Amino acid sequence: MGLSAPQGEKHRRHSMVVVPMDAPGVHVERSTHVLGYRDGPHGGHAEIVYDAVRVPRDHLLGEWNGGFAIGQARLGPGRIHHCMRLIGMAERAYDLMCTRVQQRVAFGKPLAAQGVVQEWIAESRIRIEQARLLVLKTAWLMDTVGNRGAAVEISAIKVAIPEMATWVIDRAMQAHGGMGVSQDTPLPELYAQARMLHLADGPDEVHKMAMARRELRRYPTG
Amino acid sequence: MGLSAPQGEKHRRHSMVVVPMDAPGVHVERSTHVLGYRDGPHGGHAEIVYDAVRVPRDHLLGEWNGGFAIGQARLGPGRIHHCMRLIGMAERAYDLMCTRVQQRVAFGKPLAAQGVVQEWIAESRIRIEQARLLVLKTAWLMDTVGNRGAAVEISAIKVAIPEMATWVIDRAMQAHGGMGVSQDTPLPELYAQARMLHLADGPDEVHKMAMARRELRRYPTG
Amino acid sequence: MGLSAPQGEKHRRHSMVVVPMDAPGVHVERSTHVLGYRDGPHGGHAEIVYDAVRVPRDHLLGEWNGGFAIGQARLGPGRIHHCMRLIGMAERAYDLMCTRVQQRVAFGKPLAAQGVVQEWIAESRIRIEQARLLVLKTAWLMDTVGNRGAAVEISAIKVAIPEMATWVIDRAMQAHGGMGVSQDTPLPELYAQARMLHLADGPDEVHKMAMARRELRRYPTG
Amino acid sequence: MGLSAPQGEKHRRHSMVVVPMDAPGVHVERSTHVLGYRDGPHGGHAEIVYDAVRVPRDHLLGEWNGGFAIGQARLGPGRIHHCMRLIGMAERAYDLMCTRVQQRVAFGKPLAAQGVVQEWIAESRIRIEQARLLVLKTAWLMDTVGNRGAAVEISAIKVAIPEMATWVIDRAMQAHGGMGVSQDTPLPELYAQARMLHLADGPDEVHKMAMARRELRRYPTG
Repeated sequence: MGLSAPQGEKHRRHSMVVVPMDAPGVHVERSTHVLGYRDGPHGGHAEIVYDAVRVPRDHLLGEWNGGFAIGQARLGPGRIHHCMRLIGMAERAYDLMCTRVQQRVAFGKPLAAQGVVQEWIAESRIRIEQARLLVLKTAWLMDTVGNRGAAVEISAIKVAIPEMATWVIDRAMQAHGGMGVSQDTPLPELYAQARMLHLADGPDEVHKMAMARRELRRYPTG
Repeated sequence: MGLSAPQGEKHRRHSMVVVPMDAPGVHVERSTHVLGYRDGPHGGHAEIVYDAVRVPRDHLLGEWNGGFAIGQARLGPGRIHHCMRLIGMAERAYDLMCTRVQQRVAFGKPLAAQGVVQEWIAESRIRIEQARLLVLKTAWLMDTVGNRGAAVEISAIKVAIPEMATWVIDRAMQAHGGMGVSQDTPLPELYAQARMLHLADGPDEVHKMAMARRELRRYPTG
Repeated sequence: MGLSAPQGEKHRRHSMVVVPMDAPGVHVERSTHVLGYRDGPHGGHAEIVYDAVRVPRDHLLGEWNGGFAIGQARLGPGRIHHCMRLIGMAERAYDLMCTRVQQRVAFGKPLAAQGVVQEWIAESRIRIEQARLLVLKTAWLMDTVGNRGAAVEISAIKVAIPEMATWVIDRAMQAHGGMGVSQDTPLPELYAQARMLHLADGPDEVHKMAMARRELRRYPTG
Repeated sequence: MGLSAPQGEKHRRHSMVVVPMDAPGVHVERSTHVLGYRDGPHGGHAEIVYDAVRVPRDHLLGEWNGGFAIGQARLGPGRIHHCMRLIGMAERAYDLMCTRVQQRVAFGKPLAAQGVVQEWIAESRIRIEQARLLVLKTAWLMDTVGNRGAAVEISAIKVAIPEMATWVIDRAMQAHGGMGVSQDTPLPELYAQARMLHLADGPDEVHKMAMARRELRRYPTG
C-alpha cells in the first residue's frame, strides 16, 4: 500500500498493488519476532525495502487511490477472523490442559483432583463459551446490519477474545509444568499469537475508547 | 420443608407444606442482613422457630415425602431467574454510570472524557453482553434438553453472572464518588444482592467443582 | 470549614471553626449510608444545614483564612491512618477466615483442606504483608522527609491498601457462606468501610494520576 | 545429582558430582525452549544423556549421599535470588515503558497523557515497591532466623514476585505497540523469564499450599 495521491482527499490518497517477492528492488531486511518466535525471511511480518520497484499496471488491487477503502473493508472481517481462530486456539489449549491433568499424578492424586486446577477448567470453559457466543452474535450482526452496524461488537470481540485466549492458554501452560513453556507443546506459540492480538489490528485501548464513545452517544451531556 | 420419613430412601425423606405466618407456634426470631440491608420481620430471609405448629392436610405442597424432588426441580429455573435479574441490575448500574459520567465535570471535563472511565464503560458492555448471551443459551438448552442436559451451563451462569454484576455495579459506584456508596443511588443495594448471589443457591466454588468434574469425564484418566 | 475571604489568594480563602451540635441554627438533615450501614444522627457523615449559626471568636481553629493549610496538613496523616486501620481490618478478616475454615466441614473434610481455600489464605497473607511493609515505609518517609517528600508513597498506599483490604475481606465473607454477608460476623461492615476508602480522601483514580505524573517527571518528553 | 544409596534413609540417597561437558558418554540431546527462546547446546537447561560416564572421586560435591541436603540448602537462596533479579527486570521494563510513553505521540498527545497509561505506571510502581519490600524483609529474615524460619516468606515471594513481574512487563510491552513483542526491545525475553519463574523452583500452586498449611497451624481444627 503506497501513497499515490498525496494531495487527494483524506480517504483517497493510497493505492494497493501486488508486488512479487522476486521483483527487482525488493529487499527483505529481516523478520520481526513475536515473543521469541520468528517467521524467517520466507514469510510472516517482515521489514521490507522497496528500492525503485516497478510492477505492471494490472498488479493494481481494486481502484487507483482506493487503497484506504480496501483496507477498511477488510478490517471487520479480519478482526473477527482472528477472534474465531483464537477460540480454536483456546479450545486446543483447554483440551491439552484437561488431558494433562487427568494423566499427571502429583501428591498422590491426578492434578484433576486439585480444586485449584478444577477452577482453571471451570473458568476456562466459562470464558470460552462467552467468547464464542459474542463472536457468533457479531458474525450475525455483520451479516445482517453490516460492519458499520456491528462496530461496537467488532471492537468488543477484538478486546475480549485475546484476553480470554491468553488467560486460558496461560493456565494450560501452568498445568503442564516446565513442559508447558517448552517446545514440547504448542502452548507457548499459541500464547505468543494470542498476546500479539492484543496489539494487531488496533490495540485493546483504542478499541475500548471507540466502544465507550459510541455507547456514550446515547446519554446526554451535562 | 421438613423431615417426614427419616428412614425413607435418600431422596424421599422430606415434605413441603405451606405455613401461614399467623399459625400458632410460628415465631420470627429475626431477619438476616445482607451487607447492612435488612428485610425486616415482614419478609425476606428470616430465622423462624416453629413450635409445635400444625397445618391442615391440604397445605401439603406436591406429594408426601416428595419435598426433595420439588426443591431439585426448582434449582435450575431458580438459578437462571437470579441470573436474568442480575443482568437487569447490571444494565441499570451501567445506565446510571453512563448518565453520571456525561454530566459530572472534574478537572475541567466530563468524567466521560477520561480514558479510565471509558475503559469501565467498554469493559462493562463487553461483560454484560457475554453474560446475557450465556444466559440465553442456557435458557434455550433448558427448554430443549432439560435441566439435567444444561447442568454445566446452569453452573456456568451461576458463577459468571454474579461476577459480572458485582464488577459492573462496583465500577458504577466508583463513577459516582461518595454518592455511589450512599442511599442516594440504588447501586449499593444492587451490589449487596449481586454479592449475595456468589453464595445463594450454591457458592461459586461448588459450581466450579461440579463443572470441572463433568467436563473432565470426557478425558481418560492416567 | 467556610469561605471567609472569597477574594483572597487561592489558598487563603477558608477558615475552620468548631460548631457545637446544639448551637442555634444547626440542623442535621440526615446521615448518609455506606452500603446499607448508617451512622444515625448521633455521629458519622451527615448532611447538616447551618442556618445563621454564630459561634464565639475563640472557636476558630488555627489562623483566620488558614483553613486550607489545616486541611492539607491533615491529608497525609489522615490517609496513612486509614491505611493502618485497614491493615488491622484485613488481619481481623484473615483471622476469622482461618478460624472458620479449620472448623467448618463440607464434603467430608474441613474447608481448610480445599486447595481453593488455601489459595485465598496464601494470597491474603501475601497481600497483607506487602501492604503492611509499604505503609511502614511510607510512615518512615513521612517522619524523615515529610509529607511532601512522601507524596508518591502516600498516594500509593491510598490506592493499594483499600484494594488489598476489600479483596481479603471479600474472601473471608465467601469462606463463611451466607453467614459471611450477615450481621453474625463483622465482615460486611468491614467491607463497607474498606470499599468506602476507595473514594474517601481522593478516589483511586486521582491518586494514580498524581503518582504517574510525579513518576514521569524523571523521563524526558518527546 | 544421582541416586547413590537407593536403600538409604529418605534424605540420604543422592549424591552430587561435577561432570565436565567433555567427559566420555555425555551427550547433549537438545536444549529446551522457554516461549520461543532457546539457549542452544552451549548452555541453559538441556536434555542430557549420561552414558556410563565416570568422573574422578574428587569431583564429588560435599558429602557422599549428601546431595539432598545440598539441594535443600540452595533452595531458599536460589529462590530469593530469582526474585531479586525479577525486581530488576521489572524496573527495567518500567523504565522502558516510562521512556516510551513520554516520547510516543498518538491522537495528538504523548501516550503519557492517557489516563489508562497513567494507571499502568501507578499500578506498576505500587506493585514493584511492595515486591521489593517483601523481598527485603525475607532477606532480613533469612539472615536472622534462617531459611527454615523464613519458609512462609520465601514461598510468598516465590509466588508474588513473578506475578508482579509478568504484569509490569506485559504492560510495558503493550505500551510499545507491536515493537513491544518484537526483538527490538528486551521486553519479550524478560517476559519469558518471568513467566518461567511461575514454574521453576516449585510452581505457584505448591508454594501457596505450603504457605496456607503453615499459616493454618496456628488455628485449632474443628
